Amino acid sequence: MPNNEKLKIGVDIGGTNLKFGIVNREGKILAKCSYKFDKTISSTEVVKGLGIEINKFLVTNKIDKKDISGIGIGCPGSIDSTKGICDYSNNLKFNNAPLVDLIEKTTGLKAKAANDANVACLGEARFGSGKNYQNIVFLTLGTGVGGGLVLNGKIYEGKDGKGAELGHSIIELNGRKCTCGRRGCLETYASATALIKDTKEAMKKHPESHLWNYVENDIDKVGAKTAFSVASEGDKTAIEVVNNFIYYLGEGILNFINIFKPDIVLLGGGVSYQGDSLINPLNEYIKKAHYGFGDSPKVSVAVASLGNDAGIIGASCLID
Amino acid sequence: MPNNEKLKIGVDIGGTNLKFGIVNREGKILAKCSYKFDKTISSTEVVKGLGIEINKFLVTNKIDKKDISGIGIGCPGSIDSTKGICDYSNNLKFNNAPLVDLIEKTTGLKAKAANDANVACLGEARFGSGKNYQNIVFLTLGTGVGGGLVLNGKIYEGKDGKGAELGHSIIELNGRKCTCGRRGCLETYASATALIKDTKEAMKKHPESHLWNYVENDIDKVGAKTAFSVASEGDKTAIEVVNNFIYYLGEGILNFINIFKPDIVLLGGGVSYQGDSLINPLNEYIKKAHYGFGDSPKVSVAVASLGNDAGIIGASCLID
Repeated sequence: MPNNEKLKIGVDIGGTNLKFGIVNREGKILAKCSYKFDKTISSTEVVKGLGIEINKFLVTNKIDKKDISGIGIGCPGSIDSTKGICDYSNNLKFNNAPLVDLIEKTTGLKAKAANDANVACLGEARFGSGKNYQNIVFLTLGTGVGGGLVLNGKIYEGKDGKGAELGHSIIELNGRKCTCGRRGCLETYASATALIKDTKEAMKKHPESHLWNYVENDIDKVGAKTAFSVASEGDKTAIEVVNNFIYYLGEGILNFINIFKPDIVLLGGGVSYQGDSLINPLNEYIKKAHYGFGDSPKVSVAVASLGNDAGIIGASCLID
Repeated sequence: MPNNEKLKIGVDIGGTNLKFGIVNREGKILAKCSYKFDKTISSTEVVKGLGIEINKFLVTNKIDKKDISGIGIGCPGSIDSTKGICDYSNNLKFNNAPLVDLIEKTTGLKAKAANDANVACLGEARFGSGKNYQNIVFLTLGTGVGGGLVLNGKIYEGKDGKGAELGHSIIELNGRKCTCGRRGCLETYASATALIKDTKEAMKKHPESHLWNYVENDIDKVGAKTAFSVASEGDKTAIEVVNNFIYYLGEGILNFINIFKPDIVLLGGGVSYQGDSLINPLNEYIKKAHYGFGDSPKVSVAVASLGNDAGIIGASCLID
């Protein structure tokens, strides 16, 4: 089988789950596998275990290794894609984990690795909402604000693969304290974590708000969608929380628009599931506050379309 | 003469001056010409006039057009480099000016055009402080804060050549009013204009400051270097102005470091002439507030080295 017809394997290493799939040239997942991994064992054991699972999966699915052109790996944290090493990952305790080397030795297949948000961005660029675009800014709104960049059609990673930390650009001098050590990072205003915190604070100030009814008076039940849901019913406090969130995120996105003037800005992660109730006011805000006014090309924000499969499909795109 | 030995012409269109030079393959200017142009005439006349000047200059210097591989043009404002058009330029009133077309017709030589800050960044990347680096963030600290990006060894321009507006990313929500319409843009804190304004305001609050002596009690004499000069003499007010400026610029640069993780950040424009008294405290601040701490590669800030020639040399780099 010529190389440009061969299948590829995409691996998505998550905080608790490992997923991988066989992906064809059209970005379709033909078969996939997902399992929880033991976080108490070493990264070497985790990655070797992954290689063994891939070997078994290929046998079970009667796929010959000759028909696979390689394994792409998306991993959270700081990935040196040139060396194929995960330098560090807060969530995984993967320190100096030689991902590519271990997978290549265990499977006998060629492998490549990159940061998970970058990989998801690449997947969207090839087969998702970013299809046919050359320059894409990708933000994942989850626990933090992750970033991915595809520039001139390729993942942009920066020195030692440490770039695209879009959530760690500040929008407020001496603003909210960030886990990274700075103050005022976009992440502290526009992540799901920040939205939940802001919702809870607004509730404490407004005992009359319907937000309380929505969570059955249990503030611990507040999630990223709480404010959006209650705002749609017309609750003043919830509307204010949502509007502030749109303002923070909108200002952050406008920064990236002025810096990159990309073809599109894509949003993934938990908060992006709000769909139109997030995207429509965001696009309105951005149109209004856009630099260069009439002369500047309009850049739109859209939801990433590959959802949970973005990791596997994107990782497979690392392989030619 | 084979193409890779031919000379090139670099053009630097400024606010009031037009400069061009014959540049060799090593980035050396062999001969140059500079003249003021009439800002009341149309952009077509300006650019045609430039073509005629180039023709004359080649004759005077006995250079055969066969030995020139092309003309690169750096122009302020919004340049569509694919079409070779200056869409708009605040300073020049160049609206939809077909730079490349006019120059090619007048000279019979091939031409290319790009934004002046991008072109200066490219020059620094090939022959200046950014030599041998692949990823460079370039900031010009002048009337505004201009931006240039070389990513993966090439100018990054974004959609319709409108990207790299680095000065128009905010560092303060609802902060200082910017000419672009937004509030809190880096430009309103870290340009020469902002530094002069902050120096004047500090003087008004502190009639005892030596800043007054330095400008002979004439506040209109305050320039971008005033605060730096007086701070070096130990004046408290001047030191505070300088420290604030370092803080603002440092936070802005840290944003770009986290976004791009470039090989180097280069500073040009008026304020950069302060040299070490600007660069040393900036690098200290950045080392302290760096994201990722020990694990992240250190990124340094340096002064661009081509100075006034960056425009001509950089523009010539647009030509192969």
